[in-house]
Amino acid sequence: MDNCSKYQNEHQEKFLNELFELLRIPSISADSTYNDDTARCAEAVKESLLKAGCDHAEVCQTAGHPIVYAEKIIDPSLPTILTYGHYDVQPPDPLGLWLSGPFEPTIRDGKIFARGACDDKGQMFMHVKALESMNETNLLQCNVKFIIEGEEEVGSPNLGPFLEANQEKLKADIVLVSDTSMISMEHPSIETGLRGLAYMEVEVTGPNRDLHSGVYGGAVANPITILSKMIASLHDENNHITIEGFYDNVTDLDQAEREALNSAPFDLDEYKKRFRDKNVWGEKGYTTLERTGVRPTLELNGIWGGYIGEGAKTVLPSKAFAKISMRLVPNQNSNEISKLFTAHFNKIAPDYVTVKVTEHHGGEAVVTPTNSVAYKAAEKAIEATFGKKPIPTRGGGSIPIIALFEKTLGLKTVLMGFGLDNDNIHSPNEKYDVVNYFKGIETIPYFHKYFAELSKS
Amino acid sequence: MDNCSKYQNEHQEKFLNELFELLRIPSISADSTYNDDTARCAEAVKESLLKAGCDHAEVCQTAGHPIVYAEKIIDPSLPTILTYGHYDVQPPDPLGLWLSGPFEPTIRDGKIFARGACDDKGQMFMHVKALESMNETNLLQCNVKFIIEGEEEVGSPNLGPFLEANQEKLKADIVLVSDTSMISMEHPSIETGLRGLAYMEVEVTGPNRDLHSGVYGGAVANPITILSKMIASLHDENNHITIEGFYDNVTDLDQAEREALNSAPFDLDEYKKRFRDKNVWGEKGYTTLERTGVRPTLELNGIWGGYIGEGAKTVLPSKAFAKISMRLVPNQNSNEISKLFTAHFNKIAPDYVTVKVTEHHGGEAVVTPTNSVAYKAAEKAIEATFGKKPIPTRGGGSIPIIALFEKTLGLKTVLMGFGLDNDNIHSPNEKYDVVNYFKGIETIPYFHKYFAELSKS
Repeated sequence: MDNCSKYQNEHQEKFLNELFELLRIPSISADSTYNDDTARCAEAVKESLLKAGCDHAEVCQTAGHPIVYAEKIIDPSLPTILTYGHYDVQPPDPLGLWLSGPFEPTIRDGKIFARGACDDKGQMFMHVKALESMNETNLLQCNVKFIIEGEEEVGSPNLGPFLEANQEKLKADIVLVSDTSMISMEHPSIETGLRGLAYMEVEVTGPNRDLHSGVYGGAVANPITILSKMIASLHDENNHITIEGFYDNVTDLDQAEREALNSAPFDLDEYKKRFRDKNVWGEKGYTTLERTGVRPTLELNGIWGGYIGEGAKTVLPSKAFAKISMRLVPNQNSNEISKLFTAHFNKIAPDYVTVKVTEHHGGEAVVTPTNSVAYKAAEKAIEATFGKKPIPTRGGGSIPIIALFEKTLGLKTVLMGFGLDNDNIHSPNEKYDVVNYFKGIETIPYFHKYFAELSKS
Repeated sequence: MDNCSKYQNEHQEKFLNELFELLRIPSISADSTYNDDTARCAEAVKESLLKAGCDHAEVCQTAGHPIVYAEKIIDPSLPTILTYGHYDVQPPDPLGLWLSGPFEPTIRDGKIFARGACDDKGQMFMHVKALESMNETNLLQCNVKFIIEGEEEVGSPNLGPFLEANQEKLKADIVLVSDTSMISMEHPSIETGLRGLAYMEVEVTGPNRDLHSGVYGGAVANPITILSKMIASLHDENNHITIEGFYDNVTDLDQAEREALNSAPFDLDEYKKRFRDKNVWGEKGYTTLERTGVRPTLELNGIWGGYIGEGAKTVLPSKAFAKISMRLVPNQNSNEISKLFTAHFNKIAPDYVTVKVTEHHGGEAVVTPTNSVAYKAAEKAIEATFGKKPIPTRGGGSIPIIALFEKTLGLKTVLMGFGLDNDNIHSPNEKYDVVNYFKGIETIPYFHKYFAELSKS
């Protein structure tokens, strides 16, 4: 593997510059204003895969943003690794808080600052550069296939149909994904579970038009006040979620599992310092690691209504809105939870208002096995480059597509992520440490090597 | 007065066109982007007053938007009417709901649609055209002074100092204001009370930056959830306001006063139909007329936080904001209420968040006497042009400056407004009926005539 490392060391500048090219494209999947950029990004990913050594690469059109597919089959009798990633990014708002432009990648203090630097362009591109390194040094020991999609940040609505339609083409032995984080560089870890997601938008209508709050205030129901009361009732005094049936399929961990989970290196004082003192909060009876790892949650992602400009406007608005998402744990079904939410929200709405609930997107929770060949290969790969065995953890985020790979293609997934919790993904000043980017490029060929070796035995 | 009516009938088209010129200027005082337009509007008002017959008119600079002063002194021994109005307007948002541009005045179904059509350019300009009519027909029987300000919609912060500094110049016998509404053209009315106002903005901060709601949700306090809970607690189950001390200085009307107030023509079924069925709501134990006329209220005017764009973003935001205003009744002091609100809001904030409360502007409630010469003159003027005696009512809105006139200049005010409750002031599609505009221009000279006559006796 020394040749591979040598090649990587000699091409660090090139690897950074090529990533920067991708980061400059504002491929914001949620905002249709950027559709042309998103399409342009798919083309750029395809070109990069061909240059890295793929025999074949194509941009596959879907009902939404395109999916990039590529492959290099060196020997059909060898194992095949299907790498999944996404080239779309979250919206960069609020723009005012970025220290440098979200689409003007900049290195400060050894960190690459840009929207998508970590989630997921930076992590996805490590696999492209790892392939290039193995290809140029003749060290490739597995066949490789890539699916790089453009709708992960909006719930992957067109990936399911794509998998269904291409089952033969996508045959593989494992799905490899770098879209998660590690505890720290000193405590490398592998996520073995991800939460599911149900994302709802609610609209509460009071009067049929905006009214003068002096003339009508006090006599006509205010939708902001009513929405606030409804939101306030979604958690009880112990921060349990009050939606009927919400916890029906949630199984509590047993004592041994709880102890294992809570034995991961975690410093609550350091965690508290990341935000603002006294800001740590949550469901009664559970630790912070449990709250983010194994318990379902309900979070307000956005709220708006009435006059939100400069100064004062005395309006009693017609409508108020909120975006509300729930993270789900194994056995909770995102469609069922969406239905329970909708029924509950309609039920708690007083007669004074009408409500409309719409569903944005959802996905199912997953737990990945730690006794598989693939997990062991990842464990050995990380041990080879970090010098210590990674800790299995449960992540709080969601990659809805992981459950789909299993259902549609019958494939398990390994979540070998190199992000850090402080990478500000989905936030202003998203970053990815340069060292993590290169460490990922270094580790991935080891995964290929050990996966080939362990598959044989 | 026949000559005056004749002059008005012959100049209807001119009167409309000149109003339209004013309505085309986006003099939005709350938004500093429009400062040049607001200044241009002041100049236009000054010019219109000179053309209408004033001997002197000037644009007086202030720390904010300018105040237009004008006068015509025909005989120092005659009574002097000080007419107050404002040339600034509310922001037009939400723009998408206007059927025609807010600053492109259009007549549809006999109604002038434009921001400021009723509040207050249309009503203020009636006085300019009434003066022109009296002047051209030599019917002027009182001296006239005008103060037309540009900051009414932002709480008139610079009018107090202007009145203080110009007490001699502003000497008069009565303040006449058209910035309120009547019950209907069939039930003309005069407002005899206005509520005061305290307008607050609150900022609730959870974590010190936006976080990923999957990674941190459930473990870090969400400022939208907390703000919602705080807002929800501001009214109890009877819709009483829960701020400590809020009602301390509120005196209930006695039975006779309540009966008089509730005997005004008011059709609750028709009122309900104005909005949406089941939308009428309010403080337990009070009628709709009492809720809007004599009871203090607390209304949410705006709320925002997190991601409010298209699609879905899984963010746990750092901050959430709301604009909250309270309408006050006589004896409640707006500074004191602002202080009580601030103390209460800080008190109910849980440790998980920090809050910042800022005050936008305030003003005091007023009750105007119905036994004065000026009120009687207004009553007779309306009777002369509408054919029936106006009903005294209590309005829910606020014109903070009215209390200031009494305090600084020792002057009482008559609120002779010609708007209608369905004029959509502060809302999209603000309108003013053409017939109300002309009826106002017709009625104002009668007020001058009767005020002169009754002042003599």
